[in-house]
Amino acid sequence: MKFSSKCEACSLSPIRKFHPYVVAAEAAGRRVLHLNIGQPDVETPRAFFDAIRDFGEQVLAYAPSAGVDVYLEAVRDYYAGFGVRLAKEDILATFGGSEALQITMACILDEGDEILVAEPFYPNYDTFIGVTGGRIRPIPTSAGEGYRYASRERIEPLINARTKAILVTNPGNPTGAVLTHAEQRLLVDLCREHDLFLISDEVYREIVYSGEALSSMLEFEDAAENIIVVDSISKRFSSCGARVGALISRNKKLLELAMKICQGRLCAATLDQVGAAALYRTLTPEYLAAVRAEYGRRKDAVVQGLAKIPGVVHSSPEGAFYVMATLPVDDAEKLQYFLLEKFQDRGETVMYAPGEGFYATPGKGRNEIRIAYVTNPAELTRAIELLGLGIAAYNQQQKG
Amino acid sequence: MKFSSKCEACSLSPIRKFHPYVVAAEAAGRRVLHLNIGQPDVETPRAFFDAIRDFGEQVLAYAPSAGVDVYLEAVRDYYAGFGVRLAKEDILATFGGSEALQITMACILDEGDEILVAEPFYPNYDTFIGVTGGRIRPIPTSAGEGYRYASRERIEPLINARTKAILVTNPGNPTGAVLTHAEQRLLVDLCREHDLFLISDEVYREIVYSGEALSSMLEFEDAAENIIVVDSISKRFSSCGARVGALISRNKKLLELAMKICQGRLCAATLDQVGAAALYRTLTPEYLAAVRAEYGRRKDAVVQGLAKIPGVVHSSPEGAFYVMATLPVDDAEKLQYFLLEKFQDRGETVMYAPGEGFYATPGKGRNEIRIAYVTNPAELTRAIELLGLGIAAYNQQQKG
Repeated sequence: MKFSSKCEACSLSPIRKFHPYVVAAEAAGRRVLHLNIGQPDVETPRAFFDAIRDFGEQVLAYAPSAGVDVYLEAVRDYYAGFGVRLAKEDILATFGGSEALQITMACILDEGDEILVAEPFYPNYDTFIGVTGGRIRPIPTSAGEGYRYASRERIEPLINARTKAILVTNPGNPTGAVLTHAEQRLLVDLCREHDLFLISDEVYREIVYSGEALSSMLEFEDAAENIIVVDSISKRFSSCGARVGALISRNKKLLELAMKICQGRLCAATLDQVGAAALYRTLTPEYLAAVRAEYGRRKDAVVQGLAKIPGVVHSSPEGAFYVMATLPVDDAEKLQYFLLEKFQDRGETVMYAPGEGFYATPGKGRNEIRIAYVTNPAELTRAIELLGLGIAAYNQQQKG
Repeated sequence: MKFSSKCEACSLSPIRKFHPYVVAAEAAGRRVLHLNIGQPDVETPRAFFDAIRDFGEQVLAYAPSAGVDVYLEAVRDYYAGFGVRLAKEDILATFGGSEALQITMACILDEGDEILVAEPFYPNYDTFIGVTGGRIRPIPTSAGEGYRYASRERIEPLINARTKAILVTNPGNPTGAVLTHAEQRLLVDLCREHDLFLISDEVYREIVYSGEALSSMLEFEDAAENIIVVDSISKRFSSCGARVGALISRNKKLLELAMKICQGRLCAATLDQVGAAALYRTLTPEYLAAVRAEYGRRKDAVVQGLAKIPGVVHSSPEGAFYVMATLPVDDAEKLQYFLLEKFQDRGETVMYAPGEGFYATPGKGRNEIRIAYVTNPAELTRAIELLGLGIAAYNQQQKG
């Protein structure tokens, strides 16, 4: 039998592919500290579980394909809370931000079409785009420039007849960069001028460190036809396993095509939408401030730890909970295998996401890693210490 | 902005697209009896809700991309219960049978590839296949032959260099046809001889009316590389809203490609998998026998009702909970609009799924409908009575 050439060309997740080696390391009695995956340890608010417990129906029935009303209304009102006016009909409930991205790509991409994405980028974008037959055209950035990319000079030369969209993650994964208002405006203008979609993945909206007010690309109402926002409860409410997200746009034609796919898969999970609605309904500024403060402490722990490792260059996250770091090694993936198979300090080792999978340009990111800071500061301090010790041991072994 | 030509070519669900007209009819004070959608009214077993209530974790975390262990093990053991030996690693947890189908198509189809499907077929297949750039090549059937299709003479001439798979729904949706063992064997042989996948959608496995033992294409171990089974808890346990299914195959390469997509979307919903595991763990032959008997009574109510409407020809379901019926009207979709906009009897009207969307061959199915018998026998008897009255009123109006 023959398989899809598009799927064959996709990669396994660089964030998840080391899982078998972790299992082996743990079976060998070592404790693995995780810097690799964006799974927060923050408690999921009880409102989610309470709402599910109180679900009174005898039959767990299909939801409407667009989503359960209480969820769609809760999302609408959440956006209204920071000044974004939406109709319930502008919102489609999806299986996490992931499905919102899958649906968006299926709606806009034909074979050979291109999406502009600043690299390094969230590696699953490559899968969502690749299975449709489209491809990423990377917008280059550099650690030295703080991974900023939103300038006309950098983006405009990359636009061609096959370009369908610019895709941004804001706040950024893996760099932690947050777009300024002027940068957002520029991206909106570029998309309007060149008739492109602007796909804005805003799942880390609340996690910003400089006191910024909540914002969304949806504020640019003059580009209503261009803008597609991807959102999710996963990070906002530490509820990744619920798989509840949203595809939001004021482009009627896009929503019409998206509805074909939503109807095809029938609906997103009913109970999880009910739980998500309760999360939005019980959301308080105090909760968000506490979450933001906690991630701030974690960021500080990581940044302070990295400063102690000679030769490491890293991003200064303005948002989200990731740091992109350049290591003084030849190959971060080889280092990862070393750390899982050969290294330990007092029975512990460490795991991160090697950087190469975050780049579309071959060879780029080989000595970079993405660190997710989603555990407590003490654990993070120890994890970064292990990273430093591991780098030294690895480089020593390379010389030997 | 330009959209995907593949998505533009897809259709809205013929099962769900009349929803706005139902809303209008209900707003006008009429009660709409539903024969259109496969949403059973059977109570979801409490085990599902109990397991979710007992979920003890403080953080609703991502599940492994392949699925939660308790769910995968429950599915494995359920299959073992009727003699199908599977490894946990042969099973991937998906968002319902729908995502299992989406993933399968993404793994095997390139632009222009073909899948053989007997028509009439479940319309969402067309969406799952269409968005990948593939297409359905229909295997013709007829009501007069009981919609049987599994013969060498009928299928072999349709196979060409672009054929990737034969897709079957067994028991059948929308026809209710159940493949005999000999027919299954023939399909397996054809796929082996022509190097095709055999995708078997078995979500209605338990709902059969002639005392057949549970079975699966997975029993044909000599075609381990060819066979892909799509399964779901939706119909088996009346839990459509949970969106928990499975992609099952012993083809390692297929599972490897599927894992790329599973990792891309991170995981299926954690809590729903936990609930699904409990459903499988508490499954008893008595529960399944009761469900089967209830659907048998419903089938009888529908069949007896249809016999009273002059000029109706219909399938005799051997399984699932659908009847395909040919009506004595020019156009079943026009009749549906008439029923929702103009017809009522004692304040009630009726809704079904017009047949045309179940066919790939243009013009076919225009005077056919699919009836889903998922409500109680008294309600079904009244719904079929309304259908008869509606047909008479519609034909009267056409003449006038």
